[in-house]
Amino acid sequence: MWGIIATWRMAFDGVTVASQLLKEGVTVGDAIESAVRLVEDNPVYKSVGYGGLPNIQGAVQLDAAYMDGDTYQIGGVAGISDVKNPISVAKQLSKERFNSFLVGEGARDYAVLNGFDIQNMLTDRAKAEWEKRLKEVQKNQLNPYDGHDTVSMVGLDVSGSMATGTSSSGLFLKQPGRVGDSPLSGSGFYVDSEIGGAAATGLGEDLMKGCLSYEIVRLMKAGYTPQEACNQAVYDFDARLTKRNEKAGAFSLIAMDCNGAWGVATNVEFTFVVATENQRPTMYVAIPAEDNQTNIEPITEEWLEQQRKNPTVD
Amino acid sequence: MWGIIATWRMAFDGVTVASQLLKEGVTVGDAIESAVRLVEDNPVYKSVGYGGLPNIQGAVQLDAAYMDGDTYQIGGVAGISDVKNPISVAKQLSKERFNSFLVGEGARDYAVLNGFDIQNMLTDRAKAEWEKRLKEVQKNQLNPYDGHDTVSMVGLDVSGSMATGTSSSGLFLKQPGRVGDSPLSGSGFYVDSEIGGAAATGLGEDLMKGCLSYEIVRLMKAGYTPQEACNQAVYDFDARLTKRNEKAGAFSLIAMDCNGAWGVATNVEFTFVVATENQRPTMYVAIPAEDNQTNIEPITEEWLEQQRKNPTVD
Repeated sequence: MWGIIATWRMAFDGVTVASQLLKEGVTVGDAIESAVRLVEDNPVYKSVGYGGLPNIQGAVQLDAAYMDGDTYQIGGVAGISDVKNPISVAKQLSKERFNSFLVGEGARDYAVLNGFDIQNMLTDRAKAEWEKRLKEVQKNQLNPYDGHDTVSMVGLDVSGSMATGTSSSGLFLKQPGRVGDSPLSGSGFYVDSEIGGAAATGLGEDLMKGCLSYEIVRLMKAGYTPQEACNQAVYDFDARLTKRNEKAGAFSLIAMDCNGAWGVATNVEFTFVVATENQRPTMYVAIPAEDNQTNIEPITEEWLEQQRKNPTVD
Repeated sequence: MWGIIATWRMAFDGVTVASQLLKEGVTVGDAIESAVRLVEDNPVYKSVGYGGLPNIQGAVQLDAAYMDGDTYQIGGVAGISDVKNPISVAKQLSKERFNSFLVGEGARDYAVLNGFDIQNMLTDRAKAEWEKRLKEVQKNQLNPYDGHDTVSMVGLDVSGSMATGTSSSGLFLKQPGRVGDSPLSGSGFYVDSEIGGAAATGLGEDLMKGCLSYEIVRLMKAGYTPQEACNQAVYDFDARLTKRNEKAGAFSLIAMDCNGAWGVATNVEFTFVVATENQRPTMYVAIPAEDNQTNIEPITEEWLEQQRKNPTVD
């Protein structure tokens, strides 16, 4: 069995490519790297890689991580600038025994020294959106922090290996150096090839309060299906956070187990993509339902048409 | 009941001050901040704050975090330079709903802008040790990464609130921008006032593979005593990591529950300090024992004398 699950419908092309690679027997690490790179390289997606929205100063600072479920090895970068594919830097760092999580200038210098592609990651479109939003925020006291759509993926290959990758430009108009959950083990991602993996998207400041990716993997280890594990972890934490902290930001979690079964839970409307040996790449939309359940429906032509007219979700 | 537990005997003076504050009814957040600041300010301690050993380029880059167990609010800084008390910056950041984890230049700029004390954190002693070690490493191909002693604390105040704080200069001779577990939720620390808290010291690259602080709190929630939770989490993970990854770095975990009971587990010789309403500040030494147990003994005058002659542990 092979399979891959990824956050947001922007991952569809990446998952399609990854599913072909996994079918051909390529390792899950390489498949995930290829899929995340496709999202990073697409300037249309405003929350990941090239074309990602900048921080308050107009600088694009990116976060990414990679984890190998066989060895638990982790690589991560945070607040990295000018690097075309943060996921590839993170994947290479995962092979280091020491210094495998690098931030800021140090992360950029590592990428330069190791021959990764350097480019200006600010597109004209992202710059224009930054200028517009900055004016709006200054004028209207709007909450600047709306966009925070990380691409996160969990995959399984035919040899039984699992891996996870994340990549994000973080909160739009974030403060310089702000880091969310995406590069943080246990919060943004976690995977164990003998059990399964999970990964997140949403408000990083709240996700790191819950360590939900780790918790979902732990629940799968305890015998929960991926869907049960997601429901249990996400809705329990959402309730506790709301009680303790008055409010909970938006967050959505994806999971896949070592048999290719998958699950999702979310406290907002959330799109995601799945492909497995038994299922061609499919876009879904999930919304929270009653009794700590999740409503999941394949995305229809009608839904897409509706989104084109009145977008509510990426 | 009040109580505090902290990693390494360097925390003794801080715990002594904190225990006095907790006895007087000061909040656990203020007590922990005061205690960690004492360790940061002491130039004798080579792995925390002022006098912390520099990275490969000779720059002192510091990591710290603070978590409030009532609200789950977290603040963190990583790779911060020139800031006298990283723990205080982290504690202030924990009150922010957004942008509460800052790295590199952004973290330093936040500290400057918010009036925190700025100073050169490199002492003559640390610089001399850096120069000496760099020559040794260049000459003999020694493994440069030996020192990684984070000060981590978990506390409980008379009102039943809990908090945790961590502070570290990270691996000696680390690469610029390298971040360990200390500022990472779930790996370096985790606390829930209704259950308990845990925090770590050791090789960050390995600690973030296990999310042990979160796991220990979770086990306490499931009914384990702090000591049972530490034993279960630490020795199980040490075995899995050794199996999956050929080796496991040094790591040690401390825990305290919401009743002031405490526990410790470690895969190396490890010193720590505890004070509670029922126990004056006491230094202990822990070593791993058979059958996933931990041998814990109060530190004696004889042990200290032996360490002065032939140091094996900080």
